[in-house]
Amino acid sequence: MPLPEKLPTFDELPAVPGAPPQSAWWLFGRDDQVGMFNLQTPERIADAARLVRHGKMFPMNWELELPNPPLFSRGAVRQTIFRRPTSHDDVLDNFYPQASSQWDSLVHVGHSQHGLYNGITSADVTGQPGTKNGIEHWARRGIAGRAVLLDLGRYFAAIGSPLDCGSDRRVTAAELEACRQAQGVEIREGDVLLLRFGWQDWYLAQDSATRQAISNRSALRAPGIAAGEEMARYLWNCHVVAIGADNPALEAWPRTPETGGFLHEYIIGLFGMGIGELWDLSRLAADCADDGVYECFFVSAPLNKLGGVGSPPNALALK
Amino acid sequence: MPLPEKLPTFDELPAVPGAPPQSAWWLFGRDDQVGMFNLQTPERIADAARLVRHGKMFPMNWELELPNPPLFSRGAVRQTIFRRPTSHDDVLDNFYPQASSQWDSLVHVGHSQHGLYNGITSADVTGQPGTKNGIEHWARRGIAGRAVLLDLGRYFAAIGSPLDCGSDRRVTAAELEACRQAQGVEIREGDVLLLRFGWQDWYLAQDSATRQAISNRSALRAPGIAAGEEMARYLWNCHVVAIGADNPALEAWPRTPETGGFLHEYIIGLFGMGIGELWDLSRLAADCADDGVYECFFVSAPLNKLGGVGSPPNALALK
Amino acid sequence: MPLPEKLPTFDELPAVPGAPPQSAWWLFGRDDQVGMFNLQTPERIADAARLVRHGKMFPMNWELELPNPPLFSRGAVRQTIFRRPTSHDDVLDNFYPQASSQWDSLVHVGHSQHGLYNGITSADVTGQPGTKNGIEHWARRGIAGRAVLLDLGRYFAAIGSPLDCGSDRRVTAAELEACRQAQGVEIREGDVLLLRFGWQDWYLAQDSATRQAISNRSALRAPGIAAGEEMARYLWNCHVVAIGADNPALEAWPRTPETGGFLHEYIIGLFGMGIGELWDLSRLAADCADDGVYECFFVSAPLNKLGGVGSPPNALALK
Amino acid sequence: MPLPEKLPTFDELPAVPGAPPQSAWWLFGRDDQVGMFNLQTPERIADAARLVRHGKMFPMNWELELPNPPLFSRGAVRQTIFRRPTSHDDVLDNFYPQASSQWDSLVHVGHSQHGLYNGITSADVTGQPGTKNGIEHWARRGIAGRAVLLDLGRYFAAIGSPLDCGSDRRVTAAELEACRQAQGVEIREGDVLLLRFGWQDWYLAQDSATRQAISNRSALRAPGIAAGEEMARYLWNCHVVAIGADNPALEAWPRTPETGGFLHEYIIGLFGMGIGELWDLSRLAADCADDGVYECFFVSAPLNKLGGVGSPPNALALK
Repeated sequence: MPLPEKLPTFDELPAVPGAPPQSAWWLFGRDDQVGMFNLQTPERIADAARLVRHGKMFPMNWELELPNPPLFSRGAVRQTIFRRPTSHDDVLDNFYPQASSQWDSLVHVGHSQHGLYNGITSADVTGQPGTKNGIEHWARRGIAGRAVLLDLGRYFAAIGSPLDCGSDRRVTAAELEACRQAQGVEIREGDVLLLRFGWQDWYLAQDSATRQAISNRSALRAPGIAAGEEMARYLWNCHVVAIGADNPALEAWPRTPETGGFLHEYIIGLFGMGIGELWDLSRLAADCADDGVYECFFVSAPLNKLGGVGSPPNALALK
Repeated sequence: MPLPEKLPTFDELPAVPGAPPQSAWWLFGRDDQVGMFNLQTPERIADAARLVRHGKMFPMNWELELPNPPLFSRGAVRQTIFRRPTSHDDVLDNFYPQASSQWDSLVHVGHSQHGLYNGITSADVTGQPGTKNGIEHWARRGIAGRAVLLDLGRYFAAIGSPLDCGSDRRVTAAELEACRQAQGVEIREGDVLLLRFGWQDWYLAQDSATRQAISNRSALRAPGIAAGEEMARYLWNCHVVAIGADNPALEAWPRTPETGGFLHEYIIGLFGMGIGELWDLSRLAADCADDGVYECFFVSAPLNKLGGVGSPPNALALK
Repeated sequence: MPLPEKLPTFDELPAVPGAPPQSAWWLFGRDDQVGMFNLQTPERIADAARLVRHGKMFPMNWELELPNPPLFSRGAVRQTIFRRPTSHDDVLDNFYPQASSQWDSLVHVGHSQHGLYNGITSADVTGQPGTKNGIEHWARRGIAGRAVLLDLGRYFAAIGSPLDCGSDRRVTAAELEACRQAQGVEIREGDVLLLRFGWQDWYLAQDSATRQAISNRSALRAPGIAAGEEMARYLWNCHVVAIGADNPALEAWPRTPETGGFLHEYIIGLFGMGIGELWDLSRLAADCADDGVYECFFVSAPLNKLGGVGSPPNALALK
Repeated sequence: MPLPEKLPTFDELPAVPGAPPQSAWWLFGRDDQVGMFNLQTPERIADAARLVRHGKMFPMNWELELPNPPLFSRGAVRQTIFRRPTSHDDVLDNFYPQASSQWDSLVHVGHSQHGLYNGITSADVTGQPGTKNGIEHWARRGIAGRAVLLDLGRYFAAIGSPLDCGSDRRVTAAELEACRQAQGVEIREGDVLLLRFGWQDWYLAQDSATRQAISNRSALRAPGIAAGEEMARYLWNCHVVAIGADNPALEAWPRTPETGGFLHEYIIGLFGMGIGELWDLSRLAADCADDGVYECFFVSAPLNKLGGVGSPPNALALK
């Protein structure tokens, strides 16, 4: 199916008549299971590869053992090593693909009223042959293209309003836009948007009592983007394929009805965009701060797991 | 530590006096835990990125459920999906990072007499803080560079001597070289060498009885590169960083003393090169056969698992 | 529902009109999920407890790590120990309740034509609330009563025809009966029947190559009871509640159409009897050989796992 | 090694000169790994079996899925069912033997200053051959004997001071003794002591929010026996082999220095007694309330796991 010549704006949604309000369902066909990554066209990929000017690599997979303890009641991976005199093998148990750096696939969260992206239901999510919208669709297609980093941590510090990563500060669309302008970088259709809050640096500085405390879902407070329609409009109108952040949930935590509900429902459930969380953006951000270049070539190869709900990003930014 | 100006040839090994014969130990320093990937320099990475001319992506992660049953007594991954009305989470158990497409890290196999790469011992392989030579060193550095594909399957078919993927045909160094020349491609220092035997296509055509039969280690017969010193000399003198293949063990199986022993001992244990197995090379190979271009940009982001013995390759070839 | 006053003989089956031929379905009610253990009545339990004359205990759980490697493609349990200075915790992964000593629950095997015991289908076996015929029904009721041991290993040795535990010798109903008479013990309605072949003693004497070899399902040869209608008639007419053996499959292995098919289909699928395998009967048998008393009090507390297919026997014989 | 003719009183401890103060270390020999279960002698077992007068069974394994979520940061068991047309197999992952009804083995908790029972150290707890004091020692010996139930829940209700199972009420030794006298039952050397607080009945009546809340270790409040020397003296002087309770930790939770510290250190670490927690005592207690008989025959067959820290009790009380 050819891509649409022009993507609808947020106010033109739904993209296809009959689809849920404000949704991009069926934009790439009724049976599409890939979502916005369809916008990573060969032309865009080839263009983006030219951003590799210095040969610098920035892997996005944080230590698989972090956070420790994991957040949101997920579990810690267990490795068993098998030994023979001069060789080893290993096996992992209790491996939550969303415990550390992660992609959320299109089945992670749907819209609370309209359901999962493109109209599939929970009954379609089986992990068995025939399962729908799983991570394997991204894995088999591959992910590559241009990415833009917005370093919100440095931006807010620079304007004298530093982010407290122990708080649930909610960054607005206007603030994202102000950061973008301050950095002088353009966001283009088909990009991956990277958002650094500085959460990981903060986490590494906490003692084990604090780490233990915030592993209790109800005690976690973390800054992130604000929920609500204004943010949804901004992100959709950027026409990005995915948003990857270094904080626990991309959006601020806790999410409450009073603060706009659950933005995941828009991003994944209605838009079909990928969400990345707990990505290791520290080194990339430091490099961008050094050279003032906030764009890069971004590649990712998720786990090819049938019906996978999540995956480590297995991503590199290259400059 | 700066890279050596000139790499030793096989006959000049050991690279450092006092190291085991024929070894490259300590070439990148006594404490190096990365091995030959040190040769992926910024210059080489930037050069290789220019091979992305068309924006085509070729992911290397085969289905995580294949082979089924797994080979070499490894186990099949189990996914448990947690459901709430419009969201899902998942967890993986019995996940053998070497059951499907895989990187072998530097602790997978050592030399039977001299031990693990750079002189570490099995006691150094703990999976706990302080563990050595694990996959996390590649993950934290990132993997990117030029790759060259040798399509042995097509080559041997073309010269009227097709590979039987149910046999243990042992491809010699001279045959690798002949294939390379027939393809008209150059192998350069720092490259990843990709070898396609056509094993996966063969596997997919087998019925479940055959798949069951070859899951028994002693019944497996698979073509691959020959073991022995001649092959070791050829590979080392290419100065490649890693060798990724689509067959079960890179080298032919079974490995026997009569056929040169266990080539892994040279490649991983003495040279510090990465080995990749069961990689999905089918689509890449078809594309190379189409356009006659056998070089590409290769990127990989292994699992960042402390002390990990293996990992899915999480690799893309880009052309 | 009261128990039937008189149990049907094999030739009077089906027990209830309309049930499959030769089946005991619905004997204890349409909704019964316990099967023949219904025959362990309070009176029989109290009587059996009087068999504890000396206070001797014979636990039936073999080492959870044996056989090693496991048989029939099951996996080896993995333990992870969590440590604090003076305390520990542990967790088990890859725990196959049927890898070592085991109960087969009523959902393990059904009749190939008529389905699972009492007419449930595989769709009823969910492991979720509402699941049917799982091990939890035995666990919540408890298992206690009289057991009788037939020590076939010693019997055949005594008559000059020792069992070769590396062979698939098929012990007939007539031979079971001859052994029973030689031992001078009576089998009563409601008993657990214990059958010792001597397989575990044999296994412990094998080297690791043999153990490896027989872990391949197709290479396993093990003595056991013969399959077929004659054996089914004998066992049913004994009206035992369960049969526990020290060999891999109770019946001889391999099972083939030529040798009477798969006896499990009768015992579990049509009769609703429990099957026990790989039970540690060595010490009990030695004691019985010493004192000539082949009856005992038998107690078992299976895992209370919703929808469990198997469980360690967690059984003691007491004399 | 013969049993001591007369067991020391608490004030006569240590049992063996040179052992830590107040400890029973080495009472059954320097190399003993069984602890107080040594007191379950054949005579006592045979006597206890005579308590089976009616053939009533009371299994102690609560649903393996309860509590849900588990307490103390343990995990919930995951079952995977393998299906063929008329047969099934299953495997358990993330099986914490101490998540539901459980035995604490002698390596679960040691004394904070003196270490683990009989002087072993954490380095002796490997789960590999040579590991010490693991659950396998109880499994291979078997557990059977007399048990006495103290139904504290009913007792406190009867005297007009009902236990609030959402509180951390600490039951004193004097109150245990008063309950015992009110029930008119004798505790004898070698008995298993069963303590019912009514916690499980309370738990089943809670909604999911409360269950979620108390799964957070710091929010749990549960009644239990008081800690401290007075309780230690009482329990030791009873010379029981083990104490099994229906509450989360036997002793009241939270444990604090102000309320006497951690009683487990005495019971397991210094005395070598078994501790049971979350046992299903409801039906047994109801029966005892009915007939006024608070003694029973108690049997248990723990998992035979090398180096196991915990196990489901796999226990039955029989009357």
